[in-house]
Amino acid sequence: MSFPAEAPRLLRALAGETLPRPPIWFMRQAGRYLPEYRALRATAPDFISFCHDPEKAAEATLQPMRRLPFDAAIVFADILLIPGALGQKVWFEAGEGPKLGPLPEIAALEAEIEASTGRLTNIGETLSRVRAALEPERALIGFAGAPWTVATYMIEGGSSDRSGARSLAYTDPERVDRLIDVLVESSARYLAMQAAAGAQVLKLFESWAEGLSEPLFERLVADPHRRLVARLRELGVTVPLIGFPRGAGGLVEGYAASVAVQGVALDTGAPAALGLAIQAKGKTIQGALDPLLLRAGGPALDARVEELLGQWGGGPYIFNLGHGILPDTPIAHVEQVLARVAGA
Amino acid sequence: MSFPAEAPRLLRALAGETLPRPPIWFMRQAGRYLPEYRALRATAPDFISFCHDPEKAAEATLQPMRRLPFDAAIVFADILLIPGALGQKVWFEAGEGPKLGPLPEIAALEAEIEASTGRLTNIGETLSRVRAALEPERALIGFAGAPWTVATYMIEGGSSDRSGARSLAYTDPERVDRLIDVLVESSARYLAMQAAAGAQVLKLFESWAEGLSEPLFERLVADPHRRLVARLRELGVTVPLIGFPRGAGGLVEGYAASVAVQGVALDTGAPAALGLAIQAKGKTIQGALDPLLLRAGGPALDARVEELLGQWGGGPYIFNLGHGILPDTPIAHVEQVLARVAGA
Repeated sequence: MSFPAEAPRLLRALAGETLPRPPIWFMRQAGRYLPEYRALRATAPDFISFCHDPEKAAEATLQPMRRLPFDAAIVFADILLIPGALGQKVWFEAGEGPKLGPLPEIAALEAEIEASTGRLTNIGETLSRVRAALEPERALIGFAGAPWTVATYMIEGGSSDRSGARSLAYTDPERVDRLIDVLVESSARYLAMQAAAGAQVLKLFESWAEGLSEPLFERLVADPHRRLVARLRELGVTVPLIGFPRGAGGLVEGYAASVAVQGVALDTGAPAALGLAIQAKGKTIQGALDPLLLRAGGPALDARVEELLGQWGGGPYIFNLGHGILPDTPIAHVEQVLARVAGA
Repeated sequence: MSFPAEAPRLLRALAGETLPRPPIWFMRQAGRYLPEYRALRATAPDFISFCHDPEKAAEATLQPMRRLPFDAAIVFADILLIPGALGQKVWFEAGEGPKLGPLPEIAALEAEIEASTGRLTNIGETLSRVRAALEPERALIGFAGAPWTVATYMIEGGSSDRSGARSLAYTDPERVDRLIDVLVESSARYLAMQAAAGAQVLKLFESWAEGLSEPLFERLVADPHRRLVARLRELGVTVPLIGFPRGAGGLVEGYAASVAVQGVALDTGAPAALGLAIQAKGKTIQGALDPLLLRAGGPALDARVEELLGQWGGGPYIFNLGHGILPDTPIAHVEQVLARVAGA
């Protein structure tokens, strides 16, 4: 692929181009470290309603883009909108994270796949609004939680150490595999809808890839990602994809080799050699500044930014954090990193 | 090194020998899944006193050895005995895990290094008792928490997500590095005392190596391990060492290449290729059965045991779990694995 020079830099990097300075965006760049976000959030009755309100969600998506020179926006939404659309109750309690009602029978979830995408059109509306408002040289990213990560919340009923979900994968493999199948299909349709609404890149957040043995990782993460990617292409989606198997450690290189994503997002623990090995196989990497270091700031932050640019900037690279930005991160530290990456 | 055929199989494996069937022991094999352990534990007023009572701790160490054909015993103790010996208050609240008093000034900790080993001689006494009671073909393992892992508890005041300790490593590097230095020296002396008392193998538990960036891992884990190993050899300790950088994922291979331990323990997430790469560099590997699969049992457990034996049994290998045995694990499942590994 080749683009005119004014094509969004994120897309050029995901097409395999090594840019003089990498594009940059941050996970959770629309979020609580911004006072304007906190003010906007206070106008919504609850978090799920906030995500489903296209006007407010578009505004949240655009807030960091007005203030900071990020190369891409990511739609303001949540990985747990899919369980809600499939008929499982989902709500957020202040300061406690997500809560989910009992896991419905798998047959009941299967029966809701077709209808589920229609219950998520608000997110498409958010994407359309953002795309219309955003400068053409800045890309718009859509996303979904990856099947295993979403399944862990659906099985555990909220945040957890995932041991209940992992145990169920051993003791009732058929049930867990059917749940993963439901999520592969509903997520593919949801992501295809996002691409149709204006998303130029789609990211799969496998936030809980950690702690899985190699066979469980293959069964619950790598294989479902491959099927999801194939299904997206079958549905006519052509935009580049980023996979983020967070915490998969030694299993990431095999993931990058076997899943047909264009970009692999690396977490904070990724060694330089891992990123280089993935670039050498023709993929773009993204990551992996420690959010705790971004919050700490100072010369150590500058030094680490230089180190990341030095170790990975010679190949296709997207600068990002290894995990989401922390709510108490000073905005000045975000500006410090943006200035340094832009000046690289 | 070569041994007479009756030498403990664990030592032969750690000397680089590939045995027809690997030696086997389990992390937390002395523990709550055994009814006799629960009965014994109930006779001690609190967990720390239990660890410091040589008669009871020796009995806890020996309980699984009487009932099950493990190739090695590991002294019953805790990784948080060192902070106690250095003068930081440590206690366990029922069902809540460890609690620690405020972190003393580093200078105060430094002043206690020399005295700290003398406060841990009960653990030496436990080792001597166990060594006297244990059959000669079964090895005895001593251990300590690795410096970073122990430091996280000392800084955070208990169990945590370690983000406070990691942040402090950025915001007050001198203080954290001095704390690590204290732990390198006090742990080396403590481990040397254990070897003198009868430990034939020493294991370093770096239970919280996860989530560290490559430079932080080098600074807080790999470099301190190297210094600890060098200090042990300086103190005249000749027994083989096992390092366990749990959760270090993509950083484990570099750890194995740069730290002069004879064995590298792998966690549940270790891919087959990682273990083979470490064996190819002349080191013995240990691991990495999923404790959740051990608890689940059934044919899937047998299949995974066969898979591990097949993938790693062609080189120096110690069969073990990827993490400690869970309290509600049926003893029959442990017997099932022991029978299969012994029959391999």
